[in-house]
Amino acid sequence: MSPPLLANGNIIDVKQASASATGRVASVYSEVQTSRIEHELPLPSVLRSSFKIVDGPASSAAGNPDGIAKLFPNLFGQPSAMLVPSESNTLRSDQKLKIGVVLSGGQAPGGHNVISGIFDYLQERAKGSTLYGFKGGPAGIMKCKYVELSTDYIYPYRNQGGFDMICSGRDKIETPEQFKQAEETALKLGLDGLVVIGGDDSNTNACLLAENFRVKNLKTRVIGCPKTIDGDLKCKEVPTSFGFDTACKIYAEMIGNVMVDARSTGKYYHFVRLMGRAASHITLECALQTHPNITIIGEEVAAKKLTLKNVTDYIVDVICKRSELGFNYGVILIPEGLIDFIPEVQQLIAELNEILAHDTVDEGGLWKKKLANQSLQLFEFLPQAIQEQLMLERDPHGNVQVAKIETEKMLIQMAETELEKRKQEGAYKGQFRGQSHFFGYEGRCGLPTNFDSSYCYALGFAAGALLQGGKTGLISSVGNLAAPVEEWTVGGTALTSLMDVERRHGKFKPVIKKAMVELEGAPFEKFASMREEWALKNCYISPGPIQFHGPVSNAVNHTLLLELGVQA
Amino acid sequence: MSPPLLANGNIIDVKQASASATGRVASVYSEVQTSRIEHELPLPSVLRSSFKIVDGPASSAAGNPDGIAKLFPNLFGQPSAMLVPSESNTLRSDQKLKIGVVLSGGQAPGGHNVISGIFDYLQERAKGSTLYGFKGGPAGIMKCKYVELSTDYIYPYRNQGGFDMICSGRDKIETPEQFKQAEETALKLGLDGLVVIGGDDSNTNACLLAENFRVKNLKTRVIGCPKTIDGDLKCKEVPTSFGFDTACKIYAEMIGNVMVDARSTGKYYHFVRLMGRAASHITLECALQTHPNITIIGEEVAAKKLTLKNVTDYIVDVICKRSELGFNYGVILIPEGLIDFIPEVQQLIAELNEILAHDTVDEGGLWKKKLANQSLQLFEFLPQAIQEQLMLERDPHGNVQVAKIETEKMLIQMAETELEKRKQEGAYKGQFRGQSHFFGYEGRCGLPTNFDSSYCYALGFAAGALLQGGKTGLISSVGNLAAPVEEWTVGGTALTSLMDVERRHGKFKPVIKKAMVELEGAPFEKFASMREEWALKNCYISPGPIQFHGPVSNAVNHTLLLELGVQA
Repeated sequence: MSPPLLANGNIIDVKQASASATGRVASVYSEVQTSRIEHELPLPSVLRSSFKIVDGPASSAAGNPDGIAKLFPNLFGQPSAMLVPSESNTLRSDQKLKIGVVLSGGQAPGGHNVISGIFDYLQERAKGSTLYGFKGGPAGIMKCKYVELSTDYIYPYRNQGGFDMICSGRDKIETPEQFKQAEETALKLGLDGLVVIGGDDSNTNACLLAENFRVKNLKTRVIGCPKTIDGDLKCKEVPTSFGFDTACKIYAEMIGNVMVDARSTGKYYHFVRLMGRAASHITLECALQTHPNITIIGEEVAAKKLTLKNVTDYIVDVICKRSELGFNYGVILIPEGLIDFIPEVQQLIAELNEILAHDTVDEGGLWKKKLANQSLQLFEFLPQAIQEQLMLERDPHGNVQVAKIETEKMLIQMAETELEKRKQEGAYKGQFRGQSHFFGYEGRCGLPTNFDSSYCYALGFAAGALLQGGKTGLISSVGNLAAPVEEWTVGGTALTSLMDVERRHGKFKPVIKKAMVELEGAPFEKFASMREEWALKNCYISPGPIQFHGPVSNAVNHTLLLELGVQA
Repeated sequence: MSPPLLANGNIIDVKQASASATGRVASVYSEVQTSRIEHELPLPSVLRSSFKIVDGPASSAAGNPDGIAKLFPNLFGQPSAMLVPSESNTLRSDQKLKIGVVLSGGQAPGGHNVISGIFDYLQERAKGSTLYGFKGGPAGIMKCKYVELSTDYIYPYRNQGGFDMICSGRDKIETPEQFKQAEETALKLGLDGLVVIGGDDSNTNACLLAENFRVKNLKTRVIGCPKTIDGDLKCKEVPTSFGFDTACKIYAEMIGNVMVDARSTGKYYHFVRLMGRAASHITLECALQTHPNITIIGEEVAAKKLTLKNVTDYIVDVICKRSELGFNYGVILIPEGLIDFIPEVQQLIAELNEILAHDTVDEGGLWKKKLANQSLQLFEFLPQAIQEQLMLERDPHGNVQVAKIETEKMLIQMAETELEKRKQEGAYKGQFRGQSHFFGYEGRCGLPTNFDSSYCYALGFAAGALLQGGKTGLISSVGNLAAPVEEWTVGGTALTSLMDVERRHGKFKPVIKKAMVELEGAPFEKFASMREEWALKNCYISPGPIQFHGPVSNAVNHTLLLELGVQA
């Protein structure tokens, strides 16, 4: 098969790799993809020569240490580990390891580099080792569906987006039967270790698995890796989750383009909803990168107990003020999870679920009398299309599908109605035209930035080193991220130290608490100090497309730098 | 005012430029924006030393030359012009010129560089000249609203996206009164020339203005420039319109990301609608860049007189075949103008307009009896949400707003219905979940690619040279675009030679015919030869973000290279 010609006539010079399970063939790569495959990844200096693993002090839990101690009798209290340079390598490099790796949950740019990192670590430091990729997420562990990863197999995925090397899945290993299946796989393959690449839930699961293997006296150790574009898995030792940097930059590129369009056209308000589940980190980071006129942060809405009417009024107030300044255009960012943060909406939805489950809904609207007063008012305040969505779109359990509500369109309609009212009162003289956008799937599988590429590669190396060092129940931790890659620190943090106990469905469950936007945190405070200026003046910044070469290619996102105290 | 700190701690080192009319201040630029300002633009070699303007043979018209001759008695038949190197510059460089420039219609990346090109040309070759930027499009000419462009004023817009330096507008100079206003402005400012940057309509208008100024014996000459992301203004002498390259690459980046997501997740069909008005050039180019499973080209639908049912069946057939291969995911590209290409839809809409204008619509649906049989069938075939959109969303003239129909959502619903039917017949066993996207505003104002940056700069230089050479009624023409910039050819093409006559509202009007996708053209033929493979195999290509540095930064789009015969 001869290599195809590309746009500028160059022939792709990529080592021909065998097609993977999902059909990725390097010979049909774009030039940028090809150049990324060839991109050499820097490593923290500690990983480039001999090191030893040093344990820190005993750890506790994020909350409820007694509860966590009960749930993890073997692992609770174990110290975190740090890789430090040493005269000679203290890890046994003659031991051939059998390691499994699994991708869990939604895609995040950089996942392939974690796997490359584990693989390269084993190649360099534990020659003859085997790396198994479990296919389709945790279900692959339970069903023992895997592929043995080789140099050729991994090659086309280096520095590439997506999770398609082994694919991911949302299954969980939860029931005793499922734990048994995981044990059987571990035994069958003779696994020395397992790396679980996932978000908060998946890392909790990884720790339960580590505990269970320990209880059952299996040799299989488990290391987690922090993955999620949503940015809600982080703590002091794990400063950020991978994928957040890339996803935010992709969304910010689009937002910047839309801003320049808004300013050029002068007649549209763009309402941009951004992925990120419950947390508003992505929205906040995009705001810091682009300076929109209005940004709604879900955590603030919740803390201030704002109603939908409050949010609408805030938006409409800014639109009116801007109109007086001659600006009948703007850009507004809205987090995906906004609806979840508004208490009155939650209340309405709960009541609707109840009514729709047990009563008949008459066309005349008599059913509405069953709503509490506040809920009825809110329902009547909602645009008709949203009312219908609430009544019709149900999940298999009959519940309203909140995630399907197009909040950006809802807010446009509510702003329209309110502005019409103000126009009649003489308080608004402008023209309002809304355009809606939702940026989500476009950012989860982009080519990882240089930061995410290097960060993930280091996370993978760390996981390999921790497993070789006999560690279990840790999450791969790479720190000092504001410094050049050479100076990054590498280690592992006790997963139990990140946990608290929550009561779910009547049972006590360990959880790694989602890191929400902190209203006293540096990123929010910086945003809050500038948003009034952004609202009325046009301070738009267009970040442009992610660059992989040149001086601008290594910039790190604002959230991380602000949280590290490196940026003011 | 001290320059702000950026993400990676670098201080922006951009010459402080005064805030423009629309508030763009270079001090709040992103690093990529800043690096683009500093990007040095190459020029075709003919523009770098002495040249003379050489006339070609007399020209005719694209169609109906007698009609065009009558409409343009002064300009019809004039030769095209070519800049060729000469011993000494034959143009009078001691003459100070007063030139106006206007942006007309929708944004396209590169517009600012055309203006920069005109400005720099005048600075270099006609020192002491003045460049006026008419504000807000052709209305700025009629109302004599302008700004005198200076080095400082232009500086922050170099290589930047958007049209916000002087903004654009969609007004037309059409009536005798409006022509009179344009004359008054030309006289008041003592304009030697006017550059109209716009699409097919705006360039037709530019030619009418040129003819009118000539009739009235004004010294003001008019030169057009080919602008539109839609790619439908092109011919032999004008190989492409600017903005198409950048917009397609931005959309293709997003499509590529969505493809990797689809392959990683394995459970969604992404229906992506792409901007581009009536023509499907953008959709075709994005298909060539990314290799989606299904691409609908409007011109093919029209040529084959396909019905909406045919289109749905084609999509569903591929989905079923893929399902048998184990792929329950995919990516489908749909041109914005699809609806306009389906004859039966046009017929239905015409009938609906008639009925809604003259009859009452009863809830029972008796009104439907007024629809012709075929239209009734189609109406009943449409998803309910689309039926409602057709009945409710009307423009101020009471007509259905075709552009507002979310074709991607409509096709998802129709595919769902058809797949459900086939499932019951036992012909389909997969799971179908559609995700809709519309990429439009995200691409119109991106940072122009190196190609668009250089192309626009050359177009601006060409316009300056043609005006200095006393030319009028030409469109700036830069050719040999597959070669390095140094080898590009520069000249002007008689606008009348691109024209035909059309009967509009009972009057004969000159028009530059929109260049639609040609089914015998190289881009479509290449696509057609590969689409069957793309449908069933997964040949996805992820072009990644536009790069401004390195070997991949100068690639040109496929459509142009295929049309030039440079790519096979």
